[in-house]
This record gives sequence, C-alpha cells and structure tokens, in this order.
Amino acid sequence: MAKTVAITFVDPAGGRIIATKVVPQGSMVLDAALEAGIEVAATCGRRGRCRSCRVKAISGEIAPPTLQDTLQLGQDAVHERFRLSCQMPAVADCSIAAMPPKSEAGHQILSDMGVFSAGEHEIDSGVRKFYIHAKAPQDENHQTSDIEEILSCLPPETSREQTLDVLRRLPTILRAELGRITVTTFRNQIIDIEPGDTSERIYGMAFDVGTTSVVGSLVDLRTGEQLASVSAVNPQAIYGGDLMSRIAYAQFDAKKLQTLRARILNQLNEFIDTATEQASVLPEHIYKVVIVGNTCMHHICLGIDTSYVGLAPYAPVVRDPVVVPASELPIKRAPNARVCFLPIVAGFVGADTIAGIIATRIHESEGIRLLVDIGTNGEVVLGSKDRLLVCSAPAGPTFEGGQVKHGMRGAVGAIEKVAIDDDVHCQVIGDVPAIGICGSGLIDAAAKMLDAGVIDPAGRLWRQAVGPLPEKLSARIIKDDGGRAFVLVPRDESGRDEAVLLTQNDIRQLQLAKAAIYGGVMMLQQVLGVPDESIEEVMMSGGFGNYVNIESAVAIRLLPPLPLERINYVGNAALLGAQLALISETERSRAFNIARRIEHVALATRMEFQDIFVDACRFSKPGRRRVVAEEQTANAASTA
Amino acid sequence: MAKTVAITFVDPAGGRIIATKVVPQGSMVLDAALEAGIEVAATCGRRGRCRSCRVKAISGEIAPPTLQDTLQLGQDAVHERFRLSCQMPAVADCSIAAMPPKSEAGHQILSDMGVFSAGEHEIDSGVRKFYIHAKAPQDENHQTSDIEEILSCLPPETSREQTLDVLRRLPTILRAELGRITVTTFRNQIIDIEPGDTSERIYGMAFDVGTTSVVGSLVDLRTGEQLASVSAVNPQAIYGGDLMSRIAYAQFDAKKLQTLRARILNQLNEFIDTATEQASVLPEHIYKVVIVGNTCMHHICLGIDTSYVGLAPYAPVVRDPVVVPASELPIKRAPNARVCFLPIVAGFVGADTIAGIIATRIHESEGIRLLVDIGTNGEVVLGSKDRLLVCSAPAGPTFEGGQVKHGMRGAVGAIEKVAIDDDVHCQVIGDVPAIGICGSGLIDAAAKMLDAGVIDPAGRLWRQAVGPLPEKLSARIIKDDGGRAFVLVPRDESGRDEAVLLTQNDIRQLQLAKAAIYGGVMMLQQVLGVPDESIEEVMMSGGFGNYVNIESAVAIRLLPPLPLERINYVGNAALLGAQLALISETERSRAFNIARRIEHVALATRMEFQDIFVDACRFSKPGRRRVVAEEQTANAASTA
Repeated sequence: MAKTVAITFVDPAGGRIIATKVVPQGSMVLDAALEAGIEVAATCGRRGRCRSCRVKAISGEIAPPTLQDTLQLGQDAVHERFRLSCQMPAVADCSIAAMPPKSEAGHQILSDMGVFSAGEHEIDSGVRKFYIHAKAPQDENHQTSDIEEILSCLPPETSREQTLDVLRRLPTILRAELGRITVTTFRNQIIDIEPGDTSERIYGMAFDVGTTSVVGSLVDLRTGEQLASVSAVNPQAIYGGDLMSRIAYAQFDAKKLQTLRARILNQLNEFIDTATEQASVLPEHIYKVVIVGNTCMHHICLGIDTSYVGLAPYAPVVRDPVVVPASELPIKRAPNARVCFLPIVAGFVGADTIAGIIATRIHESEGIRLLVDIGTNGEVVLGSKDRLLVCSAPAGPTFEGGQVKHGMRGAVGAIEKVAIDDDVHCQVIGDVPAIGICGSGLIDAAAKMLDAGVIDPAGRLWRQAVGPLPEKLSARIIKDDGGRAFVLVPRDESGRDEAVLLTQNDIRQLQLAKAAIYGGVMMLQQVLGVPDESIEEVMMSGGFGNYVNIESAVAIRLLPPLPLERINYVGNAALLGAQLALISETERSRAFNIARRIEHVALATRMEFQDIFVDACRFSKPGRRRVVAEEQTANAASTA
Repeated sequence: MAKTVAITFVDPAGGRIIATKVVPQGSMVLDAALEAGIEVAATCGRRGRCRSCRVKAISGEIAPPTLQDTLQLGQDAVHERFRLSCQMPAVADCSIAAMPPKSEAGHQILSDMGVFSAGEHEIDSGVRKFYIHAKAPQDENHQTSDIEEILSCLPPETSREQTLDVLRRLPTILRAELGRITVTTFRNQIIDIEPGDTSERIYGMAFDVGTTSVVGSLVDLRTGEQLASVSAVNPQAIYGGDLMSRIAYAQFDAKKLQTLRARILNQLNEFIDTATEQASVLPEHIYKVVIVGNTCMHHICLGIDTSYVGLAPYAPVVRDPVVVPASELPIKRAPNARVCFLPIVAGFVGADTIAGIIATRIHESEGIRLLVDIGTNGEVVLGSKDRLLVCSAPAGPTFEGGQVKHGMRGAVGAIEKVAIDDDVHCQVIGDVPAIGICGSGLIDAAAKMLDAGVIDPAGRLWRQAVGPLPEKLSARIIKDDGGRAFVLVPRDESGRDEAVLLTQNDIRQLQLAKAAIYGGVMMLQQVLGVPDESIEEVMMSGGFGNYVNIESAVAIRLLPPLPLERINYVGNAALLGAQLALISETERSRAFNIARRIEHVALATRMEFQDIFVDACRFSKPGRRRVVAEEQTANAASTA
C-alpha cells in the first residue's frame, strides 16, 4: 500500500495553521497546497523557471534541493529550507509555510476607456423587445397554440422554431397577466418571454478574457451607454502565467481543461453579479454577451481542447464566429443571453486582435498604421485598408513581473518610474517603500540606465573596464547569486528585508520580451515593405500599455523610432471592439470579414526572423537618432 | 409533530415482504406503494372509478370502507378487508397485500405491420454520411482550423455553424486515424464525427407513444428496411389509464410532469438498447428519431406543461414540428440523433393522427375515406384530397379492459371471441380457463348477445317481460352487486374463483365507449354532408383494431353500416407514418402541410352532437339493414 504523509500548511506571517492535507508520499507540495485550497501561483507552469511557487519548510524532513531550487532561489535560501513547491515531493510529514500570491489590492488593470459610449455608432444589437397583448387560445374548433398566439403579435420575420426553454415557460406566462407579455428576440429568434412590460430593459455584456487579466463591461443596449465595468486577475493564473503553461497543464487531459474552464466561467458569472448589482439591473435582462480573447482563452471558455493549439502549426479547432446560448456554455447568471465569440485568425492571433482592429479602424485606414498589443501574449497588426498583416508577439510574463527577480505586478509597492542623475530615484505605486518593480518600471529603468551608461546597447551592466560612471551609480552594481545586479533601492529604504535589485538576468529577460514585440514589428514592416517613416501612427493597446512611458519604450526599442506625437495609447482596444460588436451586429459581421482578409505571418517559420530578433534584442541601433532627424527634416520640407 | 405509520407490503401470492414504508399518518396507501417502488396501477387516475389499485389488508387497523370501495369491490370484498388503495388513508401500522398489475406476458400490442419496408418510397432521410480523408492543418503561415479542413472535404452546402459537441470532439478524432473520418450531417448540419469508415451505418428509430402502449421500430436509413421492433405498455399508466387522469396528475406541478417525462424517456432509452442489440447495431449510429403521439404525450416527452391541454379550449402550447438534439430531450442512448416531433392539430388531435394520414394517404384520396383510430383516446378523420375533417373520439379505457368488472387487456386468459347458439361459447387467449374479457371480446360478446336477444338495441339485459329466451341463456342472467349480469363463463369453468361476468354496467360502459367513436363519425359525416354510402373505404387503425371482429363492430354500430369489403384494418398507421417521416424528409414536411390544412371539429361545442351521441349509444337503428340492402342493390345496378 502506498504510504501517505501529512502536510501542514502554515501562514508565513503568523505561523497560524491554514490547512492540513494527507497525500500519497511523493506527491508534489504545490498540488497538495492547491487541493487544500491555498492558491499558490505557478507562473511558469510548474517548470521550475520562476519563484512564484516558493515555500519554506518549517519542520519535518524534506527532499534535498533540485537544480531548479538552487538556480531560482539561490544557495542561501535553499539552506534556509526554501523550495519551489512545484519541484518538491513530500517525503515525510512536514510543516510548510506557503505564500499565496500577494494581495492584488491596487493592482492596475485597465478595465475600460472610462468613456465608452456608442457615440456615432448606430445601435443595432440584434436584440429586440416587444411588449404585446396576446390572448391565450379561445376557440376550440379553430385551434391554435400558445406560441401561435404569441407569434401573431410579433413581426412576420420572427422565427417559428422555438427553443424548448421558451416552450416550457410559455403556458404559465401567457396566462399570468392576461396575456400582457414582453417577448425578446435576438436575430428574430425568441430568446425570452416575461409577464408584464419590461421592454425598456435590454442589456448586454462585453468581456475581454486575457491571459493575465479579465475585464468586462455592462452596456445598455438601447443607448449604448456603459453602466458598469469590472476587472480581475484571470483566476487560471495559478495554473501558469503564460498561455503555453496553461496549454501544457491541460494538454490531453479533459479534466484539467474543465478545471480551467470552470475557473474562467465562474469569474464571468461573478462579473455579471457585480456589474448588474452596481447598475441595479437584473441579470435576466442581459440578452447578448460578446467575448473576445486569445485563441486559447476562446477555446477554454467553449470547452474546446487546446492540446493542438500548443503544438506546431498551432492550429485552432475553429476560427469562425461561434454563437451559443449562455445555458449551454454555461454562463448561468445570464440565463437568457446569447453568447457571441468573435472570430479567430490563428492559434496565437485571437478574437481580441480582431476586436482591436474593429476598435481602431485600421482596416479602413488610408495610411499605414501599426497596432501593438503589449501583453503576456501580444500581437502586432500592420497595414491599411489595402492590406493587413498580423503576427503573434509573445512577450511572456516579464512585463507582468514574471521571471524577474524582484518583479511584481503593478500593485502598491511596485517601482513604476525611475529617474537617474548622479544617483537613482524611484517612484513607487502608493508612495510606500518599494518591494519590487513592475513592467512599466522595468522599461523606464532600462531606458534611464541605458542613457546613464549603466547598461550598454547590448544590455550588459557597466564594468570598470568600460570607463567612468558616477560613483553613486557604480557603487550600486553588486554581485548577486553568482551574477551581477543593480541596486534600485537599497535594503534600508526598501519595503522588504533586502535591497530591490535589477539583475543582469532581469535585463536579459526584458530584452527577450521587448524583442518579441519589436521583432514582430520589424518583420511585418519587412513583409509589407514599409520603412519606419511610412508608418502614420503607432497605436499601443492593452491594459499594460497605459502605464508605459512612451519615450522610454522608444528609447529601448520596444516601439519603432518615430516622433512621439505619432505614438498613441488607445486603451483596451480589445474590450472596445467587443463593446462595438455588442451594440452593433454590423460591427460583429465586419469582424468576420476582417478575420478572413487579414494575413498571418508566422515568425518562427521565417528564416530571416532569427537575424531580426537578434537585432531587436539590442537596446539601441547605430544611426537611429539620425533616421529620426532626417525624417523630421523631411516633414519640415513637406510642410513648407 | 405529525404521527407516522409503518406500512408493510407483502406479496399476495406468497406473503413474502416486498417493502416497508414509513409515511405520515393519513397518507394514501397507493402513494406509499408507489414510493416503495411497487407499481400498483391506478387506471382511473385515483378517482375510485376502477378496481386496478385494490389491495388487501392482512393485519393492522385500517380505515372504514368508502362509498367507492363498496361500489367498486362489492360488500363481500370490503368485509374481507379489500380496499381501493387510492381511497385508503393509512391510519395505523398495517400489513398490506399489494397486487401489482398482472404480468403483461402475451399482452397484444401491435408493434408494427411486420412488413414495413420503404417500398416505393424514395429514401431521403436527411441524414448523410461522408467518409473523408481530411488533413490536420499543416501550414503555420496560412492558418486554417480543424473544422475548416473538414468542411473543405464536404459539399459546399454544409453549414459552417457547428455544435459545441462536434467542436469539442473534433481535434482528437481528426488526428486519430490520420484524418480518415466519417462525418454525418442532418439537413446539412454536422451532427457526428467518427474516426475511420462507418459510412454504411446509418440508422433511425420511429416511435409511436400512445396513452396505453408505446411501440418503436429501428430502420436502416440507407434501405428503409426495418431491423427490429419493440413494444411495451406505457409506463406512465400507473398514474392514470387515460389522458385526462395523467394531465390531472401533473397539472400545475412541474415535479410530477418531470416524473411522467422521465418514465417515458426511460422507456424510449430502453427500446433503443433492445432494438440495437437485436439488430447488432450501435446506438451511436442512430441519427434521426421520429416521435408521434397525441398532444399530451408529445408535450410530456418535450417537458412542456400539459396543464392547459386539460382545460377548455384544450389548446396545445406548440403545434409546429419540433426538432431537438437527443441530448437536449434527453434521449441519452442515441446521443447523436436529432429527434423530430411531427406537428399537432389540436389538444386532442395529435401528431399520431397526422402520421396516420400520411400512412393512409387520405389527403391524396380522390374519393371520401374514413380513418378510425380506436384507442383510449381515439380520433376520426373523414375526407379526401379536397377537404379533411378530424375529431377526437375518446373511448376511454373500456376497450383496454378498464372500468369493466372483469375487463382486462388482451393477455392470456382473456375472452377474445364469443359465439352464442342456445348457449355461450368463449374463445380465450392462450386456450386457458377464462379470467376476464378484453376489448375485442367485449365487442364480440355484445354483438352476439344482441343477435341472440340477450340485450336489446338500447343495451338492456333481457328480462322475463320481453319474451322467451333459450333456457340456458336466461339462466345465465343473475343478480350481481345490486345490478344484473350475464354469466360468460361459470365459476367452475373459469380461471378465477368466481364466474366471469358481463354486467349491465359493463354494457353501458361499452355503449359510451363505442358512441364516442361512432358519434364522432356521424358528426363528421354531417359536417361534410356525406351519407354512409358515399364513404369509399373505412380504415381501422391502432393496435387494438387488429383484434376487432369487423362484422361485430358494424353490428353494434362502432363502425358505419357499410359492406364488409369496404372496411379494412390498416395496422398501426401512426407508427407507419412515423416510419415514412423517418426515411423521407419529403413526407415529414408533408406532415406540416396536412396539419395546417385539416379542419378540427370540436364535438363538445356542437349543439347537435348531444342528439347524435344519444343515437350513437344504441346498438342498432331501425332501418339499418334496409339501407345496406338498398346500397347493395344500387351497387349491383351500377355494375350491370
């Protein structure tokens, strides 16, 4: 018989026992923690590549450290019995201090533009409500049926085919208020019947389901007005911070796919509760839901196997738009809604990209425009009304603070801006002592360090041999775990019991992340044959983009070298596009045409991409400033 | 606190304890029995109008007999502590001998014509199978999706909108046998995908769900050949023998409606198991199911409230054809099937009637024809291609043996034929001593008793005052429970411990039952203005019709007075029609046209019907023989 061991989880702060779990000997401590309901994050997807799942053994025998433990946590921490719980088999009864993810209070998610309204867009959501006065059948000789009496009060284009749900509710409702009934149709199909007059209550929800964040918006479908907005961290994150980790988690395992699906659908249900409560409307009056998201999130929401989305050639199971009754998904809190998924382009170019295009109108643009979505799994769109190109640009979790030693999300305590003169000055979210650095801080720090000569264009930290550096800056360069690091905030000023560092490895991670995006931009420019100066506008979208210092982003070559006035942050374009598809069936059908028209460029299959990527990893390029100067001259000339 | 009592149910034969049930004092013993899983029949719907639910108290205190107990069971039985369990509150702990319905072995249900085959009908079931060789997507640049690869191998009319079920199964199946896949479509919608070649396995099932009996037929949809047939008593019968009882049982009570629905759907699932096993085919290869039945059975199968079908003007909730995925109904044993319900005409004229019309082709007939379905809830159709009339003709359970003292279904021990010369000679199903009389026996007995003068045209049993009667016959007229009765089989020859009787009341029941049908026939003749002699053919359908002696049926005025060669038994026309709609979408759409065209005559709303009904109750009419004779003369003249 397999031996079992008991693991006691304690609160690392107070030592209070949180849970005890008996598991077969050899089980991973991470799994035991998750089963016990302790949401330890596993950002790298249990590959021992990050520190998010670390725990500390308080008592009991534990397994010797693995190579990953030592690499990620360092020799010292390993001696203090810190371990990566994803790499840690339970060998005997033990007591473990588990660190659930930091509180997300103050976590910055851009939930909406804050100003969404239908504006110039015509409202044609496809949802119509009719307050009718129908009679129950009266004549025994010339028989009709309940539904025929209803249909006789509705426009002739109303479908005669009914759902069982409507038929099952019909007889009671028809007779409840002497036939005074409100009937709701979506695309001429009856989807709801209610006693009395509710014809003015027509609502819809738009959701952008991202890898990291999920945002939603409750909209009045009569006026297009946004009534409430909601946002949260994607609750699947504990199963992996990036898409590939989550695909790997559920690969060829229907039960785990179901786990991921239940997590996100529960979140959407909660959103509906929160938003409708905020706006004082009934969830039963939500009739249309539009969901956008990357291919993986799209498939998971629908319960479709993502196994092959994670294997070359990364093919989706379905790309066409999908419309299903909420009850089938199920999104139980909006029982009467039809849920519309916008179409997909490719395995790593999802419905969110299409929504972004709808929102930014690139597909109608006269001049060449560039849309960059900086997210865990970013995308780049380049083109105009004549031709549209798209590629996937997977930055990974670096901009979310993943795989960075003191990286964290944009929450209280995160360094978000950096200034360097003869010393370093950090701006921290919430004005508290710094405990880490978030993605926007990382970009800003790198730009300023590059400018000050703390790092060189290849990303190497300053060494004595290079030349002089102000003393206070050079003193900040220290040894750390066998590598080198730059002290952003010394220990005595930091909010943790050590200095807040930016390691050489962190800088390499940033280079890989930004090269994924800028390499994609360069590749699309090459395919389309468009030099930098021909790009009329760069649009940065996505929740993260709002916090990025555009000048710094250009300085480190995350964005192309264009005059700053040509670069705009356009907000959460995916959500905006979803909202447009929500209030307009014309926009929703436009999405299908765009998806069929856009050309997908698979970077990995392009021989030339390798060189482009190596180039894109560099922080600056000889001659860059010259190009900008020349262009400004050219502009001045054409204006004259 | 309410007092509880324990009821112990014992086997009336062996005294073995079957079950013990603790219930609140005052609960009805019938309910306790049903809850304990003992299927005591309640043919009259708990109204104390029949004897089907009788039990015997073996020990313990019981309530005094009700008026119904005494009327139905007689003084003697009540003294022996027999009771109607539907009228019997449990007052104290007791032991009850419960009599579940007699074994139905040998019960005659006409499940099919035995000879059904597509014949001249063209096969266009709407189901198509395609064995294709699809490739999983290969090119990372020009992305497609799994479903697009499948669609590229299918006819262009195939719908691009897929069910979640198909999308969820697709990725694994596409890659299982290197893309060698069989795709099944119904009306151009993909409904199944399988690995390998199964293109020759296309099956369907037709069901006729009657109030009393349920029959089914498994058909090969490539050839139209019937592969297996199944039949059973409708398992809802314990909640009432006739429709009104079942409607009353579930009226305004969703849970009880659900009980009825679960019973019938379980039965259909069992049928699918039995039939597919008999024919050695997989239930997964059933792709189309056609269900016909009266309005009540139709609604119950679909889970639609029947409350108002039971109240004037008896309006259905829906009359249009309904098509639903089997999984939605659910009929779980045929997970891939689409279930088609034929249309309905009125609350008491259901899809079974439409199916009967399709099968008998009255709607295309040049001359006037009459279709009579003799069932618990019969229907009458009269007309031709020019005009079609229909009415409901509820005979009640009499022909099934209900509400008749020694009535029983057509099982072993039932008198099915009667001959009378100077004495009575009974033919018994299974050639055993008689234990009761079935519907066909009842009709035959009445006809022969009428002919012999044992009853008069008004249905009165012979009395001394009327005139002489052969001694052996007059000796058979006895007193019984305050009324009079005719001994069909004396006690010493019978299979029960008493004589098998036909009481005066039984004859009255027969008159009411046959008048319901013949009154309907006369009413439709009057509305259409058609004298008897203009009816070219009388078609008798329904399971029961097969066993009826047509001559006797005419003799007692159950059918119109026409030459016998014009009267035909056409089998279970409802099932045949369902089979035709199964193999032919043309027939299925024809059903809709017929349903829209046919005129419903509501007997209860017609002033003149009262007189017609009184007339129809009589066994013979002065001048009847004369009419027939005249007609024969006319025929002879026209032939000459």
